[in-house]
Amino acid sequence: MELKVYCDRLSQPSRAILIFCKANNAEFEEVTIEIGKGQHRSPEYAEVNPMKQLPAIVHGDFKLFESHAILIYLASTLPGVADHWYPADVRERAKVHSVLDWHHTNLRRGSVGYLLNTVFAVAFGMPGDPKAAAEGEKLLLASLARIESFWLQGDGPFLLGNSKPTIADVALVCEVTQLEAADENDRDRILKPHTKILKWVEDVKSATAPHFEEIHATICSAREPLKKLKAQADHKSE
Amino acid sequence: MELKVYCDRLSQPSRAILIFCKANNAEFEEVTIEIGKGQHRSPEYAEVNPMKQLPAIVHGDFKLFESHAILIYLASTLPGVADHWYPADVRERAKVHSVLDWHHTNLRRGSVGYLLNTVFAVAFGMPGDPKAAAEGEKLLLASLARIESFWLQGDGPFLLGNSKPTIADVALVCEVTQLEAADENDRDRILKPHTKILKWVEDVKSATAPHFEEIHATICSAREPLKKLKAQADHKSE
Repeated sequence: MELKVYCDRLSQPSRAILIFCKANNAEFEEVTIEIGKGQHRSPEYAEVNPMKQLPAIVHGDFKLFESHAILIYLASTLPGVADHWYPADVRERAKVHSVLDWHHTNLRRGSVGYLLNTVFAVAFGMPGDPKAAAEGEKLLLASLARIESFWLQGDGPFLLGNSKPTIADVALVCEVTQLEAADENDRDRILKPHTKILKWVEDVKSATAPHFEEIHATICSAREPLKKLKAQADHKSE
Repeated sequence: MELKVYCDRLSQPSRAILIFCKANNAEFEEVTIEIGKGQHRSPEYAEVNPMKQLPAIVHGDFKLFESHAILIYLASTLPGVADHWYPADVRERAKVHSVLDWHHTNLRRGSVGYLLNTVFAVAFGMPGDPKAAAEGEKLLLASLARIESFWLQGDGPFLLGNSKPTIADVALVCEVTQLEAADENDRDRILKPHTKILKWVEDVKSATAPHFEEIHATICSAREPLKKLKAQADHKSE
């Protein structure tokens, strides 16, 4: 196929690309690059993305990485993508860019800092840094509160008060759902007080059904194995 | 004037917006919000940007924050902006988005982590975190190396091998020039080995002359006062 998506369903920006493609009936080949096996660091993958990160796409002879850039490119080039995903109106579009930029240094940074130093450290054979985990959680909680008080204000159920989702909804919701990999108690402690966030996740899930749940099956089923790995590591270090 | 740019010339993304506007003969009002005096945290400024960060713009009745989103918006709406700044071609444009996204989590994160915990901590009355400063410097050095080996490869003098600058050149160069605030020895240690970076900064300066140097005068003149503040703080803590 002409469009190849290099991804790992355990990676939140990978899931965003996959859900967007499937929700828009794109013809593409999903090429799984397993982060847990270090496949993203292979010389072969470096030919696709020299930064050795996921996701990336190859569209004919065109290579692209960075998930937000990919979402914008796909929304602009795939046939039949409805305008609401990435509005042509320059002000509406600017607001989508603003959310996506904010995401980098707030929700994503907080989520990655927290999860990398708690859940995923063990899986990658790294020592988790408790101070970095605490800083990540603080930024994650502040970001969730900010989404509720600012980005989700307005009449519509989606970011920017829109009545239909943009690419930013898919990108940010997939960051929130990365908490599926955390211990249930931690996930509930972080997410449950944020009732607007929980409703928004459900609204994005409905708007992209059945692809959202299908693409998320991998991260949901990762929780128990990750918990076992952590218990083993804790036992060894006692 | 219809377009207002809320900024502080000591802030690197503020400078990027100002240079872009001036290089494109935009009519605008520069509204200085002094970060050092905490003016970005005032209730009045929160009406402009609820995130209380710089820069932001107000264009008629439209408010926008996040510097990359602002650059894209201005390149799309200001009259007479040449295509090279933000190409209409969807693949060329996608590559600009890719650089800008990469900037968030690499060059910018490294630069801010290093400078905030060395030079600016004293000015903000904060204790610098030596571990965060070291991590910032490591990411900053890796990012500079990556710009030289990847983003500046190709025939042209600008990012992506282009013969003329894009908005990404202005955004990233203004991050590099934030090192003007550092002690000369530190700045030289970090920048001097990167000869392609130094040439690129000069090329962006030439392409946007005389605005680049005019807009940078404030950050260049901040070095000595910052050095004195640090010496006083070091003396007190002895």
